[in-house]
Amino acid sequence: MPRKVDHDERRRHIVEALLHIAGTDGLDAVSLREVAQQAGVSMGAVQHYFATKEEMLAYALRHWLSLSVHARFSGRVRVRLGAETKPEAVLRALAAEYLPHDEASRFDARVAAAFLSRAAVDPALAQTLVPAIGGFVGTLKALLDSTGTRLDTATEARRLAALLDGLRTPVLLGALPHDQAMAVVEQHLRDILARDR
Amino acid sequence: MPRKVDHDERRRHIVEALLHIAGTDGLDAVSLREVAQQAGVSMGAVQHYFATKEEMLAYALRHWLSLSVHARFSGRVRVRLGAETKPEAVLRALAAEYLPHDEASRFDARVAAAFLSRAAVDPALAQTLVPAIGGFVGTLKALLDSTGTRLDTATEARRLAALLDGLRTPVLLGALPHDQAMAVVEQHLRDILARDR
Repeated sequence: MPRKVDHDERRRHIVEALLHIAGTDGLDAVSLREVAQQAGVSMGAVQHYFATKEEMLAYALRHWLSLSVHARFSGRVRVRLGAETKPEAVLRALAAEYLPHDEASRFDARVAAAFLSRAAVDPALAQTLVPAIGGFVGTLKALLDSTGTRLDTATEARRLAALLDGLRTPVLLGALPHDQAMAVVEQHLRDILARDR
Repeated sequence: MPRKVDHDERRRHIVEALLHIAGTDGLDAVSLREVAQQAGVSMGAVQHYFATKEEMLAYALRHWLSLSVHARFSGRVRVRLGAETKPEAVLRALAAEYLPHDEASRFDARVAAAFLSRAAVDPALAQTLVPAIGGFVGTLKALLDSTGTRLDTATEARRLAALLDGLRTPVLLGALPHDQAMAVVEQHLRDILARDR
């Protein structure tokens, strides 16, 4: 009896090939031909699972957001933290890991930049990204709340998220060294965490 | 006697068509065919001036940075300022104009996002963008210096530039309303300008 094809597994395999291309050569390089080649399947197989490039991109973004990026990123932050659990230390480790410094973090930053710019002209992608942006702000807000600060943590979480996102691009492009970006983050955390002591 | 063709003018006309496409549908939509159609010239004419898409993108980015974006952006900030000249007011007007709120500012933000993400995988574009990023930080540093602050304005300018860039994307995608983003900017300017009084 032939083995039942796992269609979700096939779809994931295809969009992981797409994400590999996006993180290496950008979304511009994503085509039916390239994705099929990278995934080692026929173009017909890709078309069987995804009717349009837009559909494939939306699925890839959801897959990337739901699984690969969060799990891997949290794992790297935990390794960086070791036994440390203070919220201030978690915020620093999260920032240091978020800013590009090795191939894994550069890959994530390139994929994020590619989807963010594409989302500016693709409402379906924007709809998927908006809750993810909110989720990142929410994580930062929870960490700020647990420092016991009396600041308006909703505003401060938005400010910190924007700062990290705005530092990510110049670090990725080589316009700002990682340690100078971290010095900006350290200054910022000192400012906001010292303000109400 | 036939009129001498102004080759620079022709090149500019072609890359302005490219920028229109990039700001409307993203860099993904930029192809030889689309650029030729938008510019109202033949594909052969485009190929005559630009041997590759990379060359055309690099020229378009330089043109956008050198002329259209700065001059138009400064003009809009001046209109917003009126007779006001205080550096704090200039910083606020600059931020309010930088964050997307009308078609012109959304267009600029979309083009910037498209080139920034592409620069992450295209060293020629990165090389062109890095000085532009430095120029924006320099403008902010000069404004911070002229407030008479005793802060480390080099670090503060980098922090403010990152904050503005990081707020630009969620505002563009509709994840953050312009007024909430401005509230973050106002809080930030209050913090840094009050710190050493």
